[in-house]
Amino acid sequence: MTKLKWGMIGGGEGSQIGPAHRLGAGLDSLFEFTAGALDHRPDAGIAYGQKLGLGERAYGSWQDMLAGEKARDDAIDLVTVATPNNTHFEITKAFLEAGFNVLCEKPMTMTVEEGEEIVRVAQASGKICAVNYGYSGYSLVRHMKAMIARGDIGKVRLVHAEFAHGHHADAADADNPRVRWRYDPAQAGVSAQFADCGIHALHMASFVTGQEVSRLSADTVSCLPQRVLEDDAMVNFRMDGGAVGRLWTSSIAIGRQHGLGIQVFGETGGLRWSQEHPNQLYYMPLGARLQVIERGEANLSPEADRTTRVTIGHAEGMPLAFANIYTDLAEAIRAQYEGRPMDPAANLFPKAEDGLRSMAAVYAVAESGKQDGAWLDARPPMFR
Amino acid sequence: MTKLKWGMIGGGEGSQIGPAHRLGAGLDSLFEFTAGALDHRPDAGIAYGQKLGLGERAYGSWQDMLAGEKARDDAIDLVTVATPNNTHFEITKAFLEAGFNVLCEKPMTMTVEEGEEIVRVAQASGKICAVNYGYSGYSLVRHMKAMIARGDIGKVRLVHAEFAHGHHADAADADNPRVRWRYDPAQAGVSAQFADCGIHALHMASFVTGQEVSRLSADTVSCLPQRVLEDDAMVNFRMDGGAVGRLWTSSIAIGRQHGLGIQVFGETGGLRWSQEHPNQLYYMPLGARLQVIERGEANLSPEADRTTRVTIGHAEGMPLAFANIYTDLAEAIRAQYEGRPMDPAANLFPKAEDGLRSMAAVYAVAESGKQDGAWLDARPPMFR
Amino acid sequence: MTKLKWGMIGGGEGSQIGPAHRLGAGLDSLFEFTAGALDHRPDAGIAYGQKLGLGERAYGSWQDMLAGEKARDDAIDLVTVATPNNTHFEITKAFLEAGFNVLCEKPMTMTVEEGEEIVRVAQASGKICAVNYGYSGYSLVRHMKAMIARGDIGKVRLVHAEFAHGHHADAADADNPRVRWRYDPAQAGVSAQFADCGIHALHMASFVTGQEVSRLSADTVSCLPQRVLEDDAMVNFRMDGGAVGRLWTSSIAIGRQHGLGIQVFGETGGLRWSQEHPNQLYYMPLGARLQVIERGEANLSPEADRTTRVTIGHAEGMPLAFANIYTDLAEAIRAQYEGRPMDPAANLFPKAEDGLRSMAAVYAVAESGKQDGAWLDARPPMFR
Amino acid sequence: MTKLKWGMIGGGEGSQIGPAHRLGAGLDSLFEFTAGALDHRPDAGIAYGQKLGLGERAYGSWQDMLAGEKARDDAIDLVTVATPNNTHFEITKAFLEAGFNVLCEKPMTMTVEEGEEIVRVAQASGKICAVNYGYSGYSLVRHMKAMIARGDIGKVRLVHAEFAHGHHADAADADNPRVRWRYDPAQAGVSAQFADCGIHALHMASFVTGQEVSRLSADTVSCLPQRVLEDDAMVNFRMDGGAVGRLWTSSIAIGRQHGLGIQVFGETGGLRWSQEHPNQLYYMPLGARLQVIERGEANLSPEADRTTRVTIGHAEGMPLAFANIYTDLAEAIRAQYEGRPMDPAANLFPKAEDGLRSMAAVYAVAESGKQDGAWLDARPPMFR
Repeated sequence: MTKLKWGMIGGGEGSQIGPAHRLGAGLDSLFEFTAGALDHRPDAGIAYGQKLGLGERAYGSWQDMLAGEKARDDAIDLVTVATPNNTHFEITKAFLEAGFNVLCEKPMTMTVEEGEEIVRVAQASGKICAVNYGYSGYSLVRHMKAMIARGDIGKVRLVHAEFAHGHHADAADADNPRVRWRYDPAQAGVSAQFADCGIHALHMASFVTGQEVSRLSADTVSCLPQRVLEDDAMVNFRMDGGAVGRLWTSSIAIGRQHGLGIQVFGETGGLRWSQEHPNQLYYMPLGARLQVIERGEANLSPEADRTTRVTIGHAEGMPLAFANIYTDLAEAIRAQYEGRPMDPAANLFPKAEDGLRSMAAVYAVAESGKQDGAWLDARPPMFR
Repeated sequence: MTKLKWGMIGGGEGSQIGPAHRLGAGLDSLFEFTAGALDHRPDAGIAYGQKLGLGERAYGSWQDMLAGEKARDDAIDLVTVATPNNTHFEITKAFLEAGFNVLCEKPMTMTVEEGEEIVRVAQASGKICAVNYGYSGYSLVRHMKAMIARGDIGKVRLVHAEFAHGHHADAADADNPRVRWRYDPAQAGVSAQFADCGIHALHMASFVTGQEVSRLSADTVSCLPQRVLEDDAMVNFRMDGGAVGRLWTSSIAIGRQHGLGIQVFGETGGLRWSQEHPNQLYYMPLGARLQVIERGEANLSPEADRTTRVTIGHAEGMPLAFANIYTDLAEAIRAQYEGRPMDPAANLFPKAEDGLRSMAAVYAVAESGKQDGAWLDARPPMFR
Repeated sequence: MTKLKWGMIGGGEGSQIGPAHRLGAGLDSLFEFTAGALDHRPDAGIAYGQKLGLGERAYGSWQDMLAGEKARDDAIDLVTVATPNNTHFEITKAFLEAGFNVLCEKPMTMTVEEGEEIVRVAQASGKICAVNYGYSGYSLVRHMKAMIARGDIGKVRLVHAEFAHGHHADAADADNPRVRWRYDPAQAGVSAQFADCGIHALHMASFVTGQEVSRLSADTVSCLPQRVLEDDAMVNFRMDGGAVGRLWTSSIAIGRQHGLGIQVFGETGGLRWSQEHPNQLYYMPLGARLQVIERGEANLSPEADRTTRVTIGHAEGMPLAFANIYTDLAEAIRAQYEGRPMDPAANLFPKAEDGLRSMAAVYAVAESGKQDGAWLDARPPMFR
Repeated sequence: MTKLKWGMIGGGEGSQIGPAHRLGAGLDSLFEFTAGALDHRPDAGIAYGQKLGLGERAYGSWQDMLAGEKARDDAIDLVTVATPNNTHFEITKAFLEAGFNVLCEKPMTMTVEEGEEIVRVAQASGKICAVNYGYSGYSLVRHMKAMIARGDIGKVRLVHAEFAHGHHADAADADNPRVRWRYDPAQAGVSAQFADCGIHALHMASFVTGQEVSRLSADTVSCLPQRVLEDDAMVNFRMDGGAVGRLWTSSIAIGRQHGLGIQVFGETGGLRWSQEHPNQLYYMPLGARLQVIERGEANLSPEADRTTRVTIGHAEGMPLAFANIYTDLAEAIRAQYEGRPMDPAANLFPKAEDGLRSMAAVYAVAESGKQDGAWLDARPPMFR
């Protein structure tokens, strides 16, 4: 089986996200890193791309890359957009319109309107537009979704999600540009911590329950007084399948390292999972005992089996979750090429619609925060 | 040192709370169980009291007990009120007015007005009126309070408290009278889960930070449709020292056994503690590593040292926390008798003012829940 | 029900063990602290006894107490011996011979011969001779025993026990008399860490499996060179029901606070429990998932139900385990008085035979350690 | 930087080890999978190799591969030997002698004599002969080694290592050929569980302390009676730097999933780490508190920094540890080519000497087990 050809925009020398994507895309030998416009400085991007073996397909700009790849018979099969947030919309849209499959880093856009535009363009193009909520690639998150879908905990009553860490708690570090821009509306938009981390938790709540957020109410605060945007938020929400939701996100919770976790409570059982120890899923059927489900154990769901790589008892971590998104995409692309339905267990990667919903939630959280926690419609207008 | 004489109202044969109080009061041999009106059925109460060795001081009603003890030279030094919630006010008030020291089970009253009346009566009487938020007796909770007071985590920015369990999640059990009354306004008042469990978490938030709740906004839901009162609530709040608060309480969180826990985040550190594993306190100073503080370790605070009974590494549990409240009260009573100031490390038992504040919070939560999460004043009128 | 009368020898002012026993004996109001010879200095013992309310039954020596109590119609029902180790034999023997029920602190004796003598005396007297392996009083340890007895894990193949802490690791503290005597053969006998802690773990291995140790091989080392006796030992053993055993004990394991824990593996399941978190028992049936058994959950064994005092989710700790031994003894004494068989679920307190077996194991460990790990008979001669 | 060329022997279609090595070797894009003899059936091996893109360098046997690669100017830079255990010696030796760098799966050989031969051949060849103790690639294991080397816990007194799982506990499964061969001397050699798992733990004990095992005593048992070789072993040992060691390995410990863990206790501190949760390392300096060291935190050792790939709080797992071995090897190979000393922080991959020492330990354990735990020299003759 020949590898698919993969390109990347952004992720230049020294970035964190670049190696993460290359690791994820390369892990299963499904994709060959073939083309890239890795830096907004043309020379640097070309040099780095050549260093990484891209040869003539190391481009100086995304526009050059779009033009160059479009002109080839052997154009890339997938492009990953990992540029600064405010450029995602433009680049994603352009590549979709040109007929490329796209994986866009989150946030997909800066506004709801842009998000709706991407959804429309993606639908019109018939191409794949994925958004990188990478935590949804963990094997036991997939299994959690499968358990809920098949009724293991009954109708879902309540979801409790958290993404609360303490890495922006230091007042002495608040003016460090690496941190500061995140809380500056001019650079970050309408939301800081919720837009950066909270939406991962909110996506996960939707992902595992199979329900979408309909309404929400938010309490947003800036614990560091110099910040305009929030560094802590509590969001209550309602989902379209009837579930109640609670979501806490923070960047000032000293002593917590990452803090993404989810608990789901249904009529006949409860589940909980935490990103920092992702190889265990805790399950309690109503009236019984708490059980520890281990990644890799026998007789899990097809969704879990497909996304596990090493035997039970060995830790798997975040890079493999990330890689699972790429594995899904490889299957989606091949199915597309072969004109066949894709493996449903692989059709779990987050899509443009998810990116749009997140953006609608970000705006609703920001607005509700300003309005003393007023309950607002959290759906994008096109899905109301 | 002769023991103090202790009496109890309620806690009849078969109750859970009776043995818990007798264990707590008796643990350090500070109190002698001397008198009781243990059952609302006079004959049963007298018979059980005599079985427990109370002799003629086994009374048929609290009124008889009040009259009988008042008439004695060797009257009881402390009375515990552990009757049904809607009788706490009347009994507590009567005993305070008659000059007795009282420990009242929570909730202290059913309304804010009654709470204010108890505060007034207690202040006028000069007697002790304690309220049994027993979890505040844990040694490491005391230490957490001491650490925050002495500045170990700097100014407190945020408190996150939980008391979320799953013991009322079973729809098949919802009509069981043992469960049902809790969600019935006619019997339980304006709030179910928040009034029952949430206020423990809220008291703890105030206890450890030394700040009182000023305003709050609540999202209250009944996950079981047959319930009128809430079985899950999320409460956002603000404290008078500037801290932001989040509190989640639930009785439908299947897979969680008890679920009382607290996290406090300040400018220079974070702390977290959980009731299910009460002998460890997790502390992270800003920029350093998470540390495990063990109950009983050397060089803790006087407040911790006073409330620890076995050496480090041995588990201590809830009954000892409960006993610490009684130990505090013994010191308070002796100081009263001896006309001296009490040991400040013992002056940590919850008081009528705390019982009143809880009641004001209960009403504010219930009302905010009805008003779509409107922010309301959470203080009792007399403290505004 | 009138309380039983209880006396204590040792446990003078400032001791750790005195309050622990008084707390345990008093917890359920089953015993009244009535008599004591609390200090080897007669005046101090009488003064402290009077301060604790013993009046004329505060004695100056155990001999006086024996004479005094023997002469009374209302003599004590149980005496606890909590004196220095090398006096246990003499006192226990004298009280048994005089017809008293005895609870002796561990080690019951200093030699195997003395242990056999106590067993003979106890059997001849018809009185109770208990030995305080208090950790066996934990509710979930009792449940573990019940589960194994009823076959929940099949035939036991292997037991793995540990009691490894780090409290004697500091070389700078090794000459502190509080620590030093433990490693000095003149004061401590043939073994230090194994005799002090290891035998708790070994007793627990026998207690939960219902099998006795038959042979053992030990590797004993002194990690601090100034020590004559061992501060770390690994003991392999075989049990009379066919189980293999491994036991590690240490006092130099920095970072471990207490370190008593046990794992039992049978043909059809495994169990594990740790003293530092005693309210959970981990159980895995063969081919299934790890389950968390919670203290206080519904439908546990009678042995567990009898020894649990607060509802599920609340921590119970070591003092309550200790109290369970006294509760067992109260039932044993009452059954004795009433000429009826005792509740089998209470007949779990450790007995003179257990104290003897421990002493035989201590000598076998010490001897095997000297003989490069030779396999030796670990049974007392009278049980061979 | 052009990729190094990598070949593999064994790891055919359906094997577990093949994908694990391909994932590890490919993770950082340092190696290109170039050649392979993937199956002992020539046709199957060639077909699978071609399917994986090896083209003409898909060989039918390791002999063909050796000949083929030797003849090329662009021969592979590294070959991984992942064939059945009893072929490792022959293949590794042949490739070394032909001037190739080799990574051999463990066990490196079936006898000590073979192990010594490999060491001699490797030394004579000047080539790299690595052995895949992959768990030593975890970032925090590397950091543990660095901490001990720089004296953070003082002189090491004791090491406690475990590798105890329950995956061969089912008697009904014991005759399953997949399990059975492991306990059959004809196929597995002199040891089963110790040779399979125990040596990982023993290697780790040496790796982190920097000390080699000199003497040992073993208690080996077959808990399932049908087994000739041991399924459980306890090994006591002494190290050449003075440390005492304890090592428990089991395959019948139901309820444990993997069970590799290590604790090291020194004069001034203790450390512990567990493979199932590899992103935390627990450290207690003498007289202080337990601290949680997180993978990826700031200011760790160069050895840790070099082997961490994602930011703090994200889980990393076993495949990345495995990849770190390959990353070390890439650096070693490049340094070899460039005639420069290699980065010392990369020079941590296990070597032929380690494979030899493991084999000597396996024979000593087997022999000591037969001799009732006699203490035996655990060193290979050539290192005595």
